[in-house]
Amino acid sequence: MELTVYLAGQIHDNWREELKVEAQKRNLPLTFVGPQTDHDRSDQIGEAILGEQPGHYYRDDAASAVNNFRTEVLMRKADVVIGLFGEKYKQWNTAMDVSTAITLNKPTIIIRPDSLIHPLKELSNKVNVTVETIEQALDVLAYIYE
Amino acid sequence: MELTVYLAGQIHDNWREELKVEAQKRNLPLTFVGPQTDHDRSDQIGEAILGEQPGHYYRDDAASAVNNFRTEVLMRKADVVIGLFGEKYKQWNTAMDVSTAITLNKPTIIIRPDSLIHPLKELSNKVNVTVETIEQALDVLAYIYE
Amino acid sequence: MELTVYLAGQIHDNWREELKVEAQKRNLPLTFVGPQTDHDRSDQIGEAILGEQPGHYYRDDAASAVNNFRTEVLMRKADVVIGLFGEKYKQWNTAMDVSTAITLNKPTIIIRPDSLIHPLKELSNKVNVTVETIEQALDVLAYIYE
Amino acid sequence: MELTVYLAGQIHDNWREELKVEAQKRNLPLTFVGPQTDHDRSDQIGEAILGEQPGHYYRDDAASAVNNFRTEVLMRKADVVIGLFGEKYKQWNTAMDVSTAITLNKPTIIIRPDSLIHPLKELSNKVNVTVETIEQALDVLAYIYE
Amino acid sequence: MELTVYLAGQIHDNWREELKVEAQKRNLPLTFVGPQTDHDRSDQIGEAILGEQPGHYYRDDAASAVNNFRTEVLMRKADVVIGLFGEKYKQWNTAMDVSTAITLNKPTIIIRPDSLIHPLKELSNKVNVTVETIEQALDVLAYIYE
Amino acid sequence: MELTVYLAGQIHDNWREELKVEAQKRNLPLTFVGPQTDHDRSDQIGEAILGEQPGHYYRDDAASAVNNFRTEVLMRKADVVIGLFGEKYKQWNTAMDVSTAITLNKPTIIIRPDSLIHPLKELSNKVNVTVETIEQALDVLAYIYE
Amino acid sequence: MELTVYLAGQIHDNWREELKVEAQKRNLPLTFVGPQTDHDRSDQIGEAILGEQPGHYYRDDAASAVNNFRTEVLMRKADVVIGLFGEKYKQWNTAMDVSTAITLNKPTIIIRPDSLIHPLKELSNKVNVTVETIEQALDVLAYIYE
Amino acid sequence: MELTVYLAGQIHDNWREELKVEAQKRNLPLTFVGPQTDHDRSDQIGEAILGEQPGHYYRDDAASAVNNFRTEVLMRKADVVIGLFGEKYKQWNTAMDVSTAITLNKPTIIIRPDSLIHPLKELSNKVNVTVETIEQALDVLAYIYE
Repeated sequence: MELTVYLAGQIHDNWREELKVEAQKRNLPLTFVGPQTDHDRSDQIGEAILGEQPGHYYRDDAASAVNNFRTEVLMRKADVVIGLFGEKYKQWNTAMDVSTAITLNKPTIIIRPDSLIHPLKELSNKVNVTVETIEQALDVLAYIYE
Repeated sequence: MELTVYLAGQIHDNWREELKVEAQKRNLPLTFVGPQTDHDRSDQIGEAILGEQPGHYYRDDAASAVNNFRTEVLMRKADVVIGLFGEKYKQWNTAMDVSTAITLNKPTIIIRPDSLIHPLKELSNKVNVTVETIEQALDVLAYIYE
Repeated sequence: MELTVYLAGQIHDNWREELKVEAQKRNLPLTFVGPQTDHDRSDQIGEAILGEQPGHYYRDDAASAVNNFRTEVLMRKADVVIGLFGEKYKQWNTAMDVSTAITLNKPTIIIRPDSLIHPLKELSNKVNVTVETIEQALDVLAYIYE
Repeated sequence: MELTVYLAGQIHDNWREELKVEAQKRNLPLTFVGPQTDHDRSDQIGEAILGEQPGHYYRDDAASAVNNFRTEVLMRKADVVIGLFGEKYKQWNTAMDVSTAITLNKPTIIIRPDSLIHPLKELSNKVNVTVETIEQALDVLAYIYE
Repeated sequence: MELTVYLAGQIHDNWREELKVEAQKRNLPLTFVGPQTDHDRSDQIGEAILGEQPGHYYRDDAASAVNNFRTEVLMRKADVVIGLFGEKYKQWNTAMDVSTAITLNKPTIIIRPDSLIHPLKELSNKVNVTVETIEQALDVLAYIYE
Repeated sequence: MELTVYLAGQIHDNWREELKVEAQKRNLPLTFVGPQTDHDRSDQIGEAILGEQPGHYYRDDAASAVNNFRTEVLMRKADVVIGLFGEKYKQWNTAMDVSTAITLNKPTIIIRPDSLIHPLKELSNKVNVTVETIEQALDVLAYIYE
Repeated sequence: MELTVYLAGQIHDNWREELKVEAQKRNLPLTFVGPQTDHDRSDQIGEAILGEQPGHYYRDDAASAVNNFRTEVLMRKADVVIGLFGEKYKQWNTAMDVSTAITLNKPTIIIRPDSLIHPLKELSNKVNVTVETIEQALDVLAYIYE
Repeated sequence: MELTVYLAGQIHDNWREELKVEAQKRNLPLTFVGPQTDHDRSDQIGEAILGEQPGHYYRDDAASAVNNFRTEVLMRKADVVIGLFGEKYKQWNTAMDVSTAITLNKPTIIIRPDSLIHPLKELSNKVNVTVETIEQALDVLAYIYE
């Protein structure tokens, strides 16, 4: 049984690559989808398509429109959503994506360091499983196939 | 037409009181609901009801269970959700509540300072209206009754 | 049994007032809600709340955000939606509102002159009842109470 | 990941062909579906199947029944909906289809010329992304695959 | 706790009145709604509102449009649906209304004589409770208040 | 685009075979599913699986349970539902299946002879298209592929 | 804000009365609904309404039909569901009611003794809050009003 | 037509294997999914992934989180759910899974011995078909393909 996994979360490091490599090592039949991970491209996509916008609010809104479109298309295809929170950045869009997944009754996992237990406690209580490492998230996915 | 408004967001200052006072000045037939705003009570409610927990993760999880229960009960009653983001704090539960509201097709407004345009851009693009002040949020609510 | 009726459609004449007067004559226990009918106020509401916008597209988008918020709040309360199409104007927001109502399984009526049969044929086929006059729309509503 | 795209909108020119050619040039794995684009066939399909109808209203209603059936079948299969509005024609069925897609939470794009900003402002505010050209719409679709 | 009960079914005898009288005797806090029970009015309502139609099919379709509108408005308000089938008549609209109620997860009861067990077996298997008399249907409703 | 079509309706003649043959002639990529068409098997399936039942009501209920299970499984897979009504029999299960399909927003067609216009008028008004012959139903399906 | 609470669970002791008394002491604006708590009446209600059934399976099925009808009507009205599990009895209907509530996104609490932690672990993990005493359940409800 | 069947229920004997063997004998195109059937693994999976927990409640809750995640992923893929109840054990998670399936409108079968008629009567009344043996459950599945 092939499953599609949406990887929500920060795009400032290569955690998605690590996770994909690890999934391949384990031979799990998973397809991974997620947001644009080229940060500059993600921020500029609105103006790249729609042309220059009159200020930073409008520039951000145009980019978000295209990024949210992408997320919606791909999340509709996802069987599982994994959200990773790191110690830096606000990551409200990660919280938004994970919460959307929960409300759509998609099974969800969040990965977060011990240091974020307190600020993420409500979201953690709502998702199916909260883990601290990429390996643990894959353990949960691998368990489906046992 | 009476409307119920859920006020999501930080519980570290008295923005809800300001908003309620302003709503009363304008004679808007609104009922406001929201989370527990006594921060200590909110953090301790799990242990207050369920007894001492074996560590901070379990203490936070127990508190979140009760807080999420409260939020779900009240948000189901809400016709409109307003989420306020301030410059401090992670506020991931605010993003979670607002995103839940959007996914449930509840009309939503977010209030956030100009400085948060960039990190909130995706959420801002998804809600109905984004404003910067409590007064503006009330302008939007008052417009329903014009 | 009291019913709430959302009156979608053009805001360039006083058809809503005519319909309300007629409903009162018939003593129907109906509450009517609808969009802002002061055309200038409707077009300016975005800038009135959010401040001056950098061009007509942004001005229109800001106004639409507030108007769509109002429509969503009120349509959620509506038991019935009536959409009126006149011979002038594009009225795509009327088609949007009526189509939203149909998709949400709200009982809907459209009022349109004979001259608009052809361009409105798909929408007319989808709504519950299509009539040509306000009186006929009220006949349909009154029939609920016979 | 293959996606199915429903192309709503006017059937008076060959914009769908242009869009498909452009998609092929970019090697996007998209399947396009849409309404009957032979205008006469579309208008006559009711009588072609059900026999002569007693007047233009009934003829239009019979055609719309078959056209709406087709649209519903294909839109249920679509992952994305694109609606194009041109400067001529009422195009209320395009607004209807796009609004149906939004209410069903299908990701949507509209293409419209600058001259239609004002009459389409509410719909534009509700869809994910509004663009002015077919190329821009494909830019948005292509971005999913980056 | 007040409940609203939609009474679907034949309009050729006065079973609704019997049921209402019996409910009053038992002091049950029930509000009953249902279709137009004046058979001629029900058949003529399309032409009464929309004017003469070009043949019996169109006359019936116009009447059904108004009757279905009424049913949809009232069934949305109903907490419970009761459908009565008698030995005469096709009563496909009764089966339609009951099936709609089931699919909308509204609790449903059907009343039918012993002689209709076989033709109604699938519908009977799907509803909550099948009884043979009006008194039994009221027994089921009364049980809610015990 | 392959489509699955559920064929609801009477199982006393071979209309399904006629329809399938005609679909093959036209090379339409359709898969047809439907109820058990061996009438005796359909009536006896409850006792065949569950053993002898204590009377005709219980025998019919047991059979209906298995038949409704089959219908639910297959209708969930269907993109389109076609219901055929003939002049004999009550066919309330056909009305039930078609009404279920409509409420689930599945595109539906009914086939019925001219003589059944009046008793089927409400259902006819609700489905997408009503036709009189198998050929016309296939014309509607074929139109999807034009 | 008045809330309606459905009390699912065993009907072999008077835990519902205890809970109601405690709620009154605290002046909570709660309305409680629940199943028939007269055990004999609950088991006999099928035959009481429908007449003698041909064996214990049919007797139980008839009673369950009426009891499930009652539960569905009342649970649709409930804002919150509380399920209590005791040490005796199978209580599969309690698990069924609580699971139904969760799947319908109704906020839920379960009350169960420490001895049932292991067999109830999956259900406990799914509900909002799990407590051991009636007082704790009321603490959770009372927290909504703080 | 391939169907996926979720096998809910006790993991203390090899009923799933028996059922799969029987399905293969009959050449039914069915894919079976279900919970982890290694009982120890199922109970330990929480600690296996998340590390040692501070007591049996937390250990059980961690295991349930991972098991519920697995169940949700697989049940979303299932066309049919079969739940087996044996005479031993509480099996509340089986009741939970079957009730979830019913509420999600998935066709369901339960298998239970004659001795469990009474405690399972409400659940039995809600599912599509209740049988006593694995062979009967397969008879019901096989009937889909007749």
